[in-house]
Amino acid sequence: MTFKDLHIISMKSFSRDMIDHILDTAEKLEPIASSKSKSDLLKGKVLAVMFFEPSTRTRMSFETAMMRLGGDVLSLGSVDASSIAKGETLADTIRVVQGYSNAIVLRHNKEGAAQLASEFSSVPIINAGDGAGHHPTQTFLDLYTIRRESHLEGLKIALAGDLKYGRTVHSLCYALSLYGAEITLVSPKELRMPAEIVDDLKSHNIKVRETDSIEEAITDVDVLYATRIQKERFPDPAEYRKVANSLQITPELLEKAKPELKVMHPLPRTNEIDPRVDDTPHACYFKQSFYGVPVRMALLALVMGALE
Amino acid sequence: MTFKDLHIISMKSFSRDMIDHILDTAEKLEPIASSKSKSDLLKGKVLAVMFFEPSTRTRMSFETAMMRLGGDVLSLGSVDASSIAKGETLADTIRVVQGYSNAIVLRHNKEGAAQLASEFSSVPIINAGDGAGHHPTQTFLDLYTIRRESHLEGLKIALAGDLKYGRTVHSLCYALSLYGAEITLVSPKELRMPAEIVDDLKSHNIKVRETDSIEEAITDVDVLYATRIQKERFPDPAEYRKVANSLQITPELLEKAKPELKVMHPLPRTNEIDPRVDDTPHACYFKQSFYGVPVRMALLALVMGALE
Amino acid sequence: MTFKDLHIISMKSFSRDMIDHILDTAEKLEPIASSKSKSDLLKGKVLAVMFFEPSTRTRMSFETAMMRLGGDVLSLGSVDASSIAKGETLADTIRVVQGYSNAIVLRHNKEGAAQLASEFSSVPIINAGDGAGHHPTQTFLDLYTIRRESHLEGLKIALAGDLKYGRTVHSLCYALSLYGAEITLVSPKELRMPAEIVDDLKSHNIKVRETDSIEEAITDVDVLYATRIQKERFPDPAEYRKVANSLQITPELLEKAKPELKVMHPLPRTNEIDPRVDDTPHACYFKQSFYGVPVRMALLALVMGALE
Repeated sequence: MTFKDLHIISMKSFSRDMIDHILDTAEKLEPIASSKSKSDLLKGKVLAVMFFEPSTRTRMSFETAMMRLGGDVLSLGSVDASSIAKGETLADTIRVVQGYSNAIVLRHNKEGAAQLASEFSSVPIINAGDGAGHHPTQTFLDLYTIRRESHLEGLKIALAGDLKYGRTVHSLCYALSLYGAEITLVSPKELRMPAEIVDDLKSHNIKVRETDSIEEAITDVDVLYATRIQKERFPDPAEYRKVANSLQITPELLEKAKPELKVMHPLPRTNEIDPRVDDTPHACYFKQSFYGVPVRMALLALVMGALE
Repeated sequence: MTFKDLHIISMKSFSRDMIDHILDTAEKLEPIASSKSKSDLLKGKVLAVMFFEPSTRTRMSFETAMMRLGGDVLSLGSVDASSIAKGETLADTIRVVQGYSNAIVLRHNKEGAAQLASEFSSVPIINAGDGAGHHPTQTFLDLYTIRRESHLEGLKIALAGDLKYGRTVHSLCYALSLYGAEITLVSPKELRMPAEIVDDLKSHNIKVRETDSIEEAITDVDVLYATRIQKERFPDPAEYRKVANSLQITPELLEKAKPELKVMHPLPRTNEIDPRVDDTPHACYFKQSFYGVPVRMALLALVMGALE
Repeated sequence: MTFKDLHIISMKSFSRDMIDHILDTAEKLEPIASSKSKSDLLKGKVLAVMFFEPSTRTRMSFETAMMRLGGDVLSLGSVDASSIAKGETLADTIRVVQGYSNAIVLRHNKEGAAQLASEFSSVPIINAGDGAGHHPTQTFLDLYTIRRESHLEGLKIALAGDLKYGRTVHSLCYALSLYGAEITLVSPKELRMPAEIVDDLKSHNIKVRETDSIEEAITDVDVLYATRIQKERFPDPAEYRKVANSLQITPELLEKAKPELKVMHPLPRTNEIDPRVDDTPHACYFKQSFYGVPVRMALLALVMGALE
């Protein structure tokens, strides 16, 4: 199994063996991520970071990952300031930037952008989100967090919030199906998981339960994964507030959960998690954010051929 | 005396011994700052630079300081492009970024921001200006400049310009009081040093003189510290021009000064210093700007535990 | 011949010997540019990159060049965010930034800015474009591309497109005159090469031919250098389209060319080159873009005194 020169576009192209190898590699690199040891693994290499729409934490964790491995980061800068304003195609931009770098992290507002870029690039493309499309490195870090803080094998997980538009949870469901999880889906009717994804999970022999009550969902799960509910999805602000309140995670709610329950969130959060939860042993979202660093280190080192 | 993990929020928490140790350390690191020797002291470390309002020279000198010591710099980028636009709290942002870095330099428009950040951060916070609050690293570099180019012990100094709103001069006055300086305050009536600061200085046995004549002030001082006078402080532009002209530093004015007088300014300047002064031996402001590098190197190396 | 501390402002100050030495150095460094070997030649050095107007590929290739040699990059950031917004002069900005860096790359919208900067800087200034003025590093990379992909000695070259305003081609013509090229100028009447440049070339015994037919020009040349034609130059959009179409480079057109013809373009392109040309052996513009890296590595290493 070699990852050298592999484009990372979508979770769908990763088998369970490949995922396990990436998570194993991340675990080996974690002491470097937390600055307990140093590395020159990617010394002399340049990572181009091209964010055509902003995503501060994704960008920063990729940059830190590259730096912690001794590599350098080349930034596209703000898009207004780039040749794109002069009407250059993405294909041309990629063909230029590949000449300046050893790998390209691409965030783009258009679905399919990363796939397109990979067709014009001789260096590996890592998709850091392509609009309504994929964001595989988020899923890798979610899996890594579950493995480090709970367990992937025989996992019981509840996914709560916007399950309709939430790219993150779609991709996570697919990956969890490789590990045979039991999944509880918690959402208001307006934001239910698309039926084809539910059917797909069931066809993989995944136990799926749907509910709109977070109280009901929380009692026997190992992980509660909350996602942001966007105000813009609701025509009526009052309806938004009602839904947001009904799904809010509070210390009182967590009293009904198992002591070892971990609460995850891709961040930034708005009101989904009461700040009083931060001080409980359930809170896992800031660790999850940190785990983006070892996971992205693993991906960078693997696709640049610095590790097998 | 250890500085490891210390937050640098305000000058008020530094004793004279601590300040001396920082300045001693800066002096040792100066050859690295001026590229006469190289260092890997902070290799493998990442400094997060979070400027919620722009301050080019402060940011650049922190970044250079980190790089000269072999470390890497992670930038928040422009604030519009960050999660802050999605409504994330500063506390959450800090808790994420601490997972990506070994120290955080924070510039914020709100007073108290650095203090707040320090309460949520496991890595040291360095305050690079918090609105009307503090900007301690500016004071450290001012002290270092005085020590290198003149002398801290028994110093006679004139502070000229906007002494009412000038955060820089308030903080410098406090620090100089630890060294027993004689201070002459030169300002128009509208921009006089607040009475409580003057009283506080006197209670520390500091000789303080107030005047609105820079000619009178300049004759026997070792250092003349000029600050920017902001047009916006004056309702009447004519009044602004009159005041600005009366305080302008010119070669003619400097003929009345001691030959060893040093002129300092935090920069950027507008009209406070005639460009013809640049070529005189009195001009010290560009050196002062450079001295920000060794001083920030010292602070970075100390709080990250790379030096004792 | 030493380049240490030399300001790189305009091609006019470079003799053929100097150019040859720069190109020789670039060729030696090319394996590092393409990541086949590593270098610490500029370790501990800091390059300040000050772009007062955006130019993504020029900036990125300078940054990569510096990183590939083990050096660090300090960015001015966006101009709005800088002291320039507070009314600081370029001279003051340069005098501050030289204290933070070992060389400064300057891009500015005003002609003469790089020359002005060099008068206030103790570290070398590299002009990365000063409005209607010069952009010497583009010319160096054009020459390097010609030398690597064709030959400089006895070159037959056609320059097509906007020859009136195209700073790039003016500077390239001057440099080629040092090598005794035969030059064919292809442009619509509105965008012809200024007469004084044509006269100057002829006075250097350069064979110059002018035509508006690219079919005619292309038959016997070694290199076809296309430049962007800006819509804004034409009062009438229909006229623009007519001219742009008549100069477009297509696979059909290239059937009339020598097999070894190389097509160059400074990029970004709009419609000057049909994307179907990309897959022909004539296409040389993405390689040309890559060659900016070894050329800029050579210039950085030479002016910072790391190579002789």
